[in-house]
Amino acid sequence: MQVAVVGAGQTAFGTSPRSLKGMFAEAARAALASVDKGMPAGRVQEAWIGSVSFGGAQLGNLAGLMCEHAGMAGIPAQRVENACASGGYAFRDAVLAVRSGQVDIALAAGVERMNDWSPERQRYWLGVSGDTEWERLAGLTFSGVYGLMAARHMKDFGTTKEHLAHVAVKNHANGSRNPKAQFRKAFTLEDCARSPAIADPLRLLDCCSTTDGAAAALVVRGDLAKEFTDTPVWVKGMGAANDLLAIHDRPSLTELRATQAAAAQAFAQAGLTAADVDLAEVHDCFTIAELLAVEDLGFCDKGQGGPFTASGATQREGRVPVNLSGGLKAKGHPLGATGVGQVCELFDQLRGATGPRQRADAEVALAHNVGGSGASCTVHILGV
Amino acid sequence: MQVAVVGAGQTAFGTSPRSLKGMFAEAARAALASVDKGMPAGRVQEAWIGSVSFGGAQLGNLAGLMCEHAGMAGIPAQRVENACASGGYAFRDAVLAVRSGQVDIALAAGVERMNDWSPERQRYWLGVSGDTEWERLAGLTFSGVYGLMAARHMKDFGTTKEHLAHVAVKNHANGSRNPKAQFRKAFTLEDCARSPAIADPLRLLDCCSTTDGAAAALVVRGDLAKEFTDTPVWVKGMGAANDLLAIHDRPSLTELRATQAAAAQAFAQAGLTAADVDLAEVHDCFTIAELLAVEDLGFCDKGQGGPFTASGATQREGRVPVNLSGGLKAKGHPLGATGVGQVCELFDQLRGATGPRQRADAEVALAHNVGGSGASCTVHILGV
Repeated sequence: MQVAVVGAGQTAFGTSPRSLKGMFAEAARAALASVDKGMPAGRVQEAWIGSVSFGGAQLGNLAGLMCEHAGMAGIPAQRVENACASGGYAFRDAVLAVRSGQVDIALAAGVERMNDWSPERQRYWLGVSGDTEWERLAGLTFSGVYGLMAARHMKDFGTTKEHLAHVAVKNHANGSRNPKAQFRKAFTLEDCARSPAIADPLRLLDCCSTTDGAAAALVVRGDLAKEFTDTPVWVKGMGAANDLLAIHDRPSLTELRATQAAAAQAFAQAGLTAADVDLAEVHDCFTIAELLAVEDLGFCDKGQGGPFTASGATQREGRVPVNLSGGLKAKGHPLGATGVGQVCELFDQLRGATGPRQRADAEVALAHNVGGSGASCTVHILGV
Repeated sequence: MQVAVVGAGQTAFGTSPRSLKGMFAEAARAALASVDKGMPAGRVQEAWIGSVSFGGAQLGNLAGLMCEHAGMAGIPAQRVENACASGGYAFRDAVLAVRSGQVDIALAAGVERMNDWSPERQRYWLGVSGDTEWERLAGLTFSGVYGLMAARHMKDFGTTKEHLAHVAVKNHANGSRNPKAQFRKAFTLEDCARSPAIADPLRLLDCCSTTDGAAAALVVRGDLAKEFTDTPVWVKGMGAANDLLAIHDRPSLTELRATQAAAAQAFAQAGLTAADVDLAEVHDCFTIAELLAVEDLGFCDKGQGGPFTASGATQREGRVPVNLSGGLKAKGHPLGATGVGQVCELFDQLRGATGPRQRADAEVALAHNVGGSGASCTVHILGV
C-alpha cells in the first residue's frame, strides 16, 4: 500500500519556554494546520512518539499525556526510544501501521527538552544512549567517540580539520536561512579553526548543541491522500538497521554499517539509487558524522566525504544539497524530535515551501537518522 | 494478512543473577527453541522490545544491544516504552509490521531488571510511569492510586477486602503450579487479611512485587507459519487505547476506559465477544486491578468483579480462568516484559503445554496489559 505524508510541522528549535507537553502540542497543531484541505485532531487514530527523554520529570508513559495535550486523548500512542534515532523509528512505525491497514491516519512525532537539566544530568542522559559498560563508565563521551572516528578518518583518508569545518560553515549558512533553527549565525572556516577544542580533532563548531524541540508528521493511506492535499509527499522507500553498540566491537571506525544497510534497503524499496536523490537531511551530530553519512549513503566514495563537501557538492546549488535546514549542527538536535524534524524539512522542500533555502525542483529526498554512535539508524526516501 | 505466533519463551520471573542482556538472550533463545520445526536466530528480521527500563545503567538505546546478545546483531530493533504496557505495545508493533508486509518474521520481546536498584530508585522509576505533576510529586504512589480505586469500588459496589483477597488466593494458587513464577507459595484468605497494610484498603498480598524477567514471542506471516509449526497460535484481534494520565482527570475511578476501548476493538477485529474467551491473562498489578479488568473486559457486569471472582468463575475450572500463570501477582511483574510474558502463557495454554495449570480445550485466549494506572492498554485475542 502507498503511504503519504500530508502534513508536517515543528516548533522552533532552541531553548523553549514551553513544557514538554506544550512543545508537543505546538508541533502537532502545526502539522494539522499544514494540511492543505484541513484535518481535525480527531481524525488521528494512533501515534508513535520519539523521546529519549529529557524535559520535566515525566520520563515514562508520556505518549498518552502528549496526545492528551494535543487534542488526541485516548488514541493508542506509544513512546519509541532508540537514542537519537527515536524519531526516525517512530516515523517508521507509523508508516508500517498505515501499510498494515490497521490505521488510516497516524501521527509520527518526537519531542525533547534538554535545556532545563544540569550539565551533569544531560551528560548522563546522553551517555546512556551510547554504550554504558565499555564507554560511558570509562569516561568516553559522544564527543570523544566521534573524535576517535574523525582521527581515524584523517589517518586513513587524509581528511583535514578544514574538511570538517566545511560541514559546519555550510550547515550554519543554511541555518541562517531557517527561522526555526537554533543557530542562525553564519560562521567562517577561520571561526571554526579558532573555536575551542572539545575532543581532538573536534572543536566546538564541529559539535551540535543541546536543544528543546518537537516535530510531527501526519502519515496516511495513499488512497486517502487527496482528501487532505493535492500535493502529498510519498514514502517511496524505507530502511532501518542497528549495529554493535560499543565502537570497539565494530570492524571499522570510519563507516557506519547501520547507515549502509538502512540505505540499501530504502533504495531497493524505492527502486532508486543515491544518484537519484535531489537533497538529503543527514544526521550531523558532529561534522565528522556528516562526512561518514555522505559516504555511507553513497553520495560519494568512502573516504571522499571531505573533498566532496569542500567541493560544494552538498551546498544548496550543488549536486546533492545536504542539511538545507541547517542540520543537527545549526537547526539543533532535540534527540527524539530530530528524525521527524528531518521529515518536516523534506516535506516543505519537496513542496517548494522553504523560501530562501529552497532547492529548486526537488523530487526525491532522503532522511537519515542515527542513534548513539551509529548503533541504530533509519533511512526514509520521500518523493513527489 | 493473517499473523501467527510460532514460538514464545521467557526466563523464570523473580530475582535473576543475570544481566539485562543475559535475561533477554535467555528469553530469545527460549522462544527460538520453542519453534517446533526450528528457527535459527538469523531468520528474525526486526525486533520490538518493551522496557521501562530498570537494570544495569544502559537505560537508552538498548534494543540493538539486546539483539546483539541474542544472535540477532544488526537487525532493526527498537525500544517501546509505555510504562507497564510496554510489552503489549511491542507485541502490537510486531504484528503491525508483519501485517504491513515489511517483515516476515518479527520478534516481540520485553525485559526488565528491577531488583538491583535501591527502593528509592525503584520508587522513582515506577513513579514516572504515572502522572508526575499531579501524583508522583505530591507523594501519590501506585499503591496509593490503586488504593483509591479500591476504596471507591467498595463504596460504589459493596466490594469487600475479602473479594480482593480472593484474587490473591487464586493467583498465588495458580503461581504455585508455574515453575517460572516468582512466588510459588499458596496463601489463604486469612493470610491476606493478616498481611501488612500498604495503602488502605490494599494490603501486602494485594500488591504485585518487583521482578526481574524477560519474555519473547516470534510473530510470522500466516502463510509461513506451517514452515515452523503445525500448531501455530493466531492473532485473531487486537486493540489498544490510552486514557488521561492523572486519575483526577478521569470521570470514574472504578473503570479503565482504555481497557474498555482496547477490548472493544480487539473483539470487533476478531469477530468475537467476551463470552467466547476461554481464558485470559489480565493486568493484576493489584488485586483491585483484576476486578476492574474482568469487568471492563466484559466477563462480568461493572461492579460485580468481586462476587464474580469469589464465585470461582475465574478459577481454572471456572467459566473464564484468569491468570493461570499466577498473573503479575504471583508470576511477577517485570514491567516491560509483562505483556509479552502474558502472550507466552497463552501460547502454551492454547497448545496444551502448561501441565498442572492447563485449562482443557482452550481455543480463544485474551491478553490484557495496562500501563500506569490505566493510561495505556493493549488487548490481544489469540486463538487456535
